[in-house]
Order: sequence, then C-alpha cells, then structure tokens
Amino acid sequence: MDVRALVFDVFGTVVDWRSGVARDARALLGGRTGAAVDPVAFADAWRSRYLPSMDRVRRGEQPWTNLDGLHRASLDDLLVEFGVPDVPEPVRAELVLAWHRLDPWPDAVDGLTRLKRDHVIGTLSNGNVALLVDMAKRAGLPWDVILSAELVGHYKPDPEVYDATARLLGLAPEQVMLVAAHVDDLAAARARGLRTAYVYRPDEHGPAVAPPPADPLADISVASFAELATHLRP
Amino acid sequence: MDVRALVFDVFGTVVDWRSGVARDARALLGGRTGAAVDPVAFADAWRSRYLPSMDRVRRGEQPWTNLDGLHRASLDDLLVEFGVPDVPEPVRAELVLAWHRLDPWPDAVDGLTRLKRDHVIGTLSNGNVALLVDMAKRAGLPWDVILSAELVGHYKPDPEVYDATARLLGLAPEQVMLVAAHVDDLAAARARGLRTAYVYRPDEHGPAVAPPPADPLADISVASFAELATHLRP
Repeated sequence: MDVRALVFDVFGTVVDWRSGVARDARALLGGRTGAAVDPVAFADAWRSRYLPSMDRVRRGEQPWTNLDGLHRASLDDLLVEFGVPDVPEPVRAELVLAWHRLDPWPDAVDGLTRLKRDHVIGTLSNGNVALLVDMAKRAGLPWDVILSAELVGHYKPDPEVYDATARLLGLAPEQVMLVAAHVDDLAAARARGLRTAYVYRPDEHGPAVAPPPADPLADISVASFAELATHLRP
Repeated sequence: MDVRALVFDVFGTVVDWRSGVARDARALLGGRTGAAVDPVAFADAWRSRYLPSMDRVRRGEQPWTNLDGLHRASLDDLLVEFGVPDVPEPVRAELVLAWHRLDPWPDAVDGLTRLKRDHVIGTLSNGNVALLVDMAKRAGLPWDVILSAELVGHYKPDPEVYDATARLLGLAPEQVMLVAAHVDDLAAARARGLRTAYVYRPDEHGPAVAPPPADPLADISVASFAELATHLRP
C-alpha cells in the first residue's frame, strides 16, 4: 500500500457526539424542563434523524442544505416530540452549535499527530466546513485539510464525495484511505477505489449497541488511531 | 471590527514564488541548458502567464482547469519560448511541483501562529487544494482551513470566491478579512463585503518592481503578519 492521505469520518470516529450533545442538551434544556428531557435520549433521538434528513437531500427531495441546517430542522421537530415546543430561538441556535463542540475520543489527538508526520490527514465528513473548523480549533485536531460533503454538494455515501477527495488531493484513489467506525461508509469508499481502515468505537451509541470489532472487508481494522499509526509507519 | 476569520492570498503574500520557482528551474533546467535559461527570468515569465491563463477560464473560453493544469500548459509554451523544447515529461511534472514547494516570507509562520490563537486562519488562493496542502506541510503553515478557487470553480477576483468564503465559514462577510499583497484582490473582496488588510511585500517581483507601501482603501496596511497580529489583538 502507498497511502499518502488519510481522511477521517468525524462523528463517532474522531469525536464522541453522544456525550457532547447530551452535555449541551442538559445545560441548555435542563433548567427549563427539569426532569422532562433525558439528555442522552435527546442526543440519540437527534442523531437518529441524521440519516433520514440527509437522505432527503440525496434523493433530491430537498435542495442542498448543510448539516447545521439539517440539524436545526430536526431539532425543531424534536423539541415538539420531547414536549418542549417553547424553547426560544437563541437556545435553539446554541443547541445546533453543540455539534461544533464535541470532544474527541481519548486517543484521537495523539494518534492524529503521529499520523500527520508521514501522511496528509483530513476530515471527510458530512459536517459542514464551519462545524469542522470550530470543532478542530476547540479540540486541537491537527488537520492538514478540511474536506466536507458541503464542498461537493453531496452527502456520503454518494460516490461524488469520495471521488472529489482523491481529485482535490491530487492523488489516485488507492493513495487515499478512509478511516471510519462505520462499515457502510467504508464500503462506499471502497467502491470508489479508496483504501479503508475500520476503527472500533464501542461507545459511540452507548452500551446497548455493540458495533462489530472489525470489518473483514477493510484493509485494516484497529481499535485506536495510535494502532493505525503503528500499522502505517513507513 | 469583529473579525473572526482571516483568509490569506498565498502567492506573493505568504510565500516567495519568485525565489522558489527560480531555485527549482535552476536545479531542473540548469544542467540541461547551461547558461541558456536565466532561472529568475524564467520564474517571472512563468508568473506573467498566470493572470492571462486564469482569465481564459474566467471568461469561459476554457473549461475549469486547476492551477496545476494551467501551470503545466503555460510551462509547455514557455519551454519553447526559452529555446528548450526538448525537456522530458518527468522534468516538466517536477517543475509544476515547484509551485508546491515555495518558501514562506520570513515573518509568515510566526505571524500566522500568533494570528491563529484568536482567529480562524485559512488560505484563499487560486492555487489548487493539493498545492496548498503540500506547501503548508513542507513550510509548516498552520492553517485551520484550506480554501481555494478550486473548491468554488471560479478564480479570484470572481465574486463567487469571496462569497463562498464567508458562507463556508458560517460568517457574515464583514467578519472575514482578506489579507493580501495585491490591491486588486483586496478591492474585489471589499466589493463583496469582506474586511481587507494589505501586506507590503517589497520583494515579490524583485528590485525592479516596487509595490505601494500601503493601500489607503484597506482597513489596515501592514509590513508583516506580526504587525497584523499586534493590530488585531483582542
């Protein structure tokens, strides 16, 4: 393998969206609603609207809307569903920004710093550019480049996103490796010729949902970015 | 002013294209052509084809071609003009990569590092993404985000480039400042509502061409990124 660039899925792969969104939901909705809103259930419910909202864009039923916009629309629905339809506008805007303030998994910053020595490292996320930039600055994620569905006008797993990644990096698809905790994302990348690395993130969805420990179809399966760095050491 | 993001023109503003291209032309063409090719004249002649080549794309006379592609086409013409039409393909490819290997002006890395503490810092260049990523890794330019004409499909000074910058950063135009050594780039950014900072780079074109010491229409004129950091300190 001659992997020159590593691009990373972000939500669940690099950062822990569930704890981060629950933390901000607790802070921003807790005082208002007392025990009414379970912040972790709220985070899970919000995330469950993620794929359907992108699929509406992918099928052309909705014009291009970036992830902040999709998060905002699903939040408005969710607040009704959770019985708190009176949350004011500034609180809604702050809640959408919870997705900009997610903490990385404990191994992420050190692992990325090691990987960066010998590779171009970048995001390849459905998150919008501003979200990814805010997140990286807050968390110290040392990206060389921010690549986003927003730059292509297509959400993963549309093939356009993976094709654009190799083209923008000036590389052949097989010189680019997608790193993700999700086998469907990896399968879509492989179908466009990218290399793939599966990362086992057992806590992404909480204790009730167990992801597979490895992806037999990926080039590599690892349990941390440090392990990936060791594997890829030139 | 509430400037949240600083975006930088790159060629001439952050890096010294003239010395860098001359260095690689000397190394790659020197042995072949003896005294026939003056490497500095070669760098100037190559750069002189930059605006006309982009203008053909901007006027729609040529489909979108990234800067590596434009550099390659103008190089092929230039080698004929300089009397060395027999330069082989691998040397041509290496020469195009000279634009990926330019050195920053002496104040650039330290100044950007200071500016990054309180601002998002990014490129806003007609260079393609791969070029900007290669350059940043080699030179240690600590960008938060790589923004490029290539992502928009329009070259500066087309208004689409400046409009896309604020949109992708999730900011109002007046929260974004373009930093450039070229008054025409700054004027085009101002026309789209961006803030502007002029940087005096007296050596960009060598001793025969003197740029203005300041741009009275810009919000700030400085002689280094360090001076800009001091001006913008919160």
